[in-house]
Amino acid sequence: MGRVYIVGAGPGDPELITVKGLRLLQAADVVVYDRLVAKELLSYTKRGALLVDVGKSPGGVGPSQEEINELLYKYAKAVDIVVRLHGGDPLVFGRGFEECLYLAERGIYCEFVPGVTSGLAAPAKYYIPPVARGIASSVALVTGREDPSKGRRFVNFRKLAGAVDTLIIYMGASTAGEIARELLEGGLSPETSVAVIRSAYFSDEEFITTTLGELKSVASPAIIVVGHVVAKGVALMEHVRKISPPPS
Amino acid sequence: MGRVYIVGAGPGDPELITVKGLRLLQAADVVVYDRLVAKELLSYTKRGALLVDVGKSPGGVGPSQEEINELLYKYAKAVDIVVRLHGGDPLVFGRGFEECLYLAERGIYCEFVPGVTSGLAAPAKYYIPPVARGIASSVALVTGREDPSKGRRFVNFRKLAGAVDTLIIYMGASTAGEIARELLEGGLSPETSVAVIRSAYFSDEEFITTTLGELKSVASPAIIVVGHVVAKGVALMEHVRKISPPPS
Repeated sequence: MGRVYIVGAGPGDPELITVKGLRLLQAADVVVYDRLVAKELLSYTKRGALLVDVGKSPGGVGPSQEEINELLYKYAKAVDIVVRLHGGDPLVFGRGFEECLYLAERGIYCEFVPGVTSGLAAPAKYYIPPVARGIASSVALVTGREDPSKGRRFVNFRKLAGAVDTLIIYMGASTAGEIARELLEGGLSPETSVAVIRSAYFSDEEFITTTLGELKSVASPAIIVVGHVVAKGVALMEHVRKISPPPS
Repeated sequence: MGRVYIVGAGPGDPELITVKGLRLLQAADVVVYDRLVAKELLSYTKRGALLVDVGKSPGGVGPSQEEINELLYKYAKAVDIVVRLHGGDPLVFGRGFEECLYLAERGIYCEFVPGVTSGLAAPAKYYIPPVARGIASSVALVTGREDPSKGRRFVNFRKLAGAVDTLIIYMGASTAGEIARELLEGGLSPETSVAVIRSAYFSDEEFITTTLGELKSVASPAIIVVGHVVAKGVALMEHVRKISPPPS
């Protein structure tokens, strides 16, 4: 019987994994990894390690969560160290909790190794703070997905509108237009500044600013940031970009 | 003129800094660091690097933010690489945004390097997910501090009570009792499960579970987690602890 480390790889920049995450990746006999993991990280695995891609393509083709759970269980019985590598953090809209639960119920030891979540790291690259003194004191991290069994969103955006200063929406690319409508109904101004960050830290990265009144659906994967912090952050970024960085 | 990297050290475990954060720390000529930074990290700095402690003690004695800004500016003019090392993430209730703003306005190039924020990493150590499929779809990260000029809290906890599934409160140790009262007034049940994690990943770490009806002020620093995820996470942790981990 081996152990399973459920590790956050951080966003697309391979240098944003933690030192502990990298150490475990180097020690792993089997690595089960997601689509949103920086592929460069896999080159750090030891010779002979088995690398298993369980990423879903944007169309949703790939193993089901039940199949991933079964794979983890199978490998944990066969080798000493299994690393389950998630993009971002395994517990922030990853499925790390379910995986550990499944394994523990079958007598497999598992442990979480946190990673930098994309919803906070993506805006930071563009100088957008989730919160900042005098500007925002609260931030909600939410999913934009719908509950397939109910045909409505998991999150009540109308209520959220007035309850937090900043909203960071994961997996809201295709539902962005509807979410914007619900936030406007909840009382937010159509002038509220919005940033959409697609494929943060990957080579096809894209950064768009807009307003809540103009927000429409975009291609996934995307992180959407709603709030006054966006305008403040972009102003700082533009300021910094005028400074020629000294040679590093 | 040098450049300033505003880096998140992650929570108290020195292995939870990112690979990029560690690389910059090793390259730094000057490191300006906080109280909540793992002190082991300082041993990775290069020979001759200047290490400047700007941490406030719990009583609040230490340099003001204005003095820290001035120090960063002074060092940036004198050396090539300054690292401003924050506990957790520099933009999640750190003062990284203000620091970068101050520097940029004076022509100094700065950049953020995200870190694992303590509010997410501390519960993960105890198997508590901020969100989890079928249990919680939204989490708010908020400050428990009061606005000194207004004598009231920055965050409206009554409104938040019904708007998100999980609440993670930073800097709420001394105001925990009052926050609990406001959340109850906002409609949360006194039976709602709560975890208090003190000094996460440091040697004097403490983990307490309670209910919202019983929550009282605690010693700082603490992360407080409110929501159904706490009970679910603790149940998983107890399950895992019964499994003897195989030798690593």
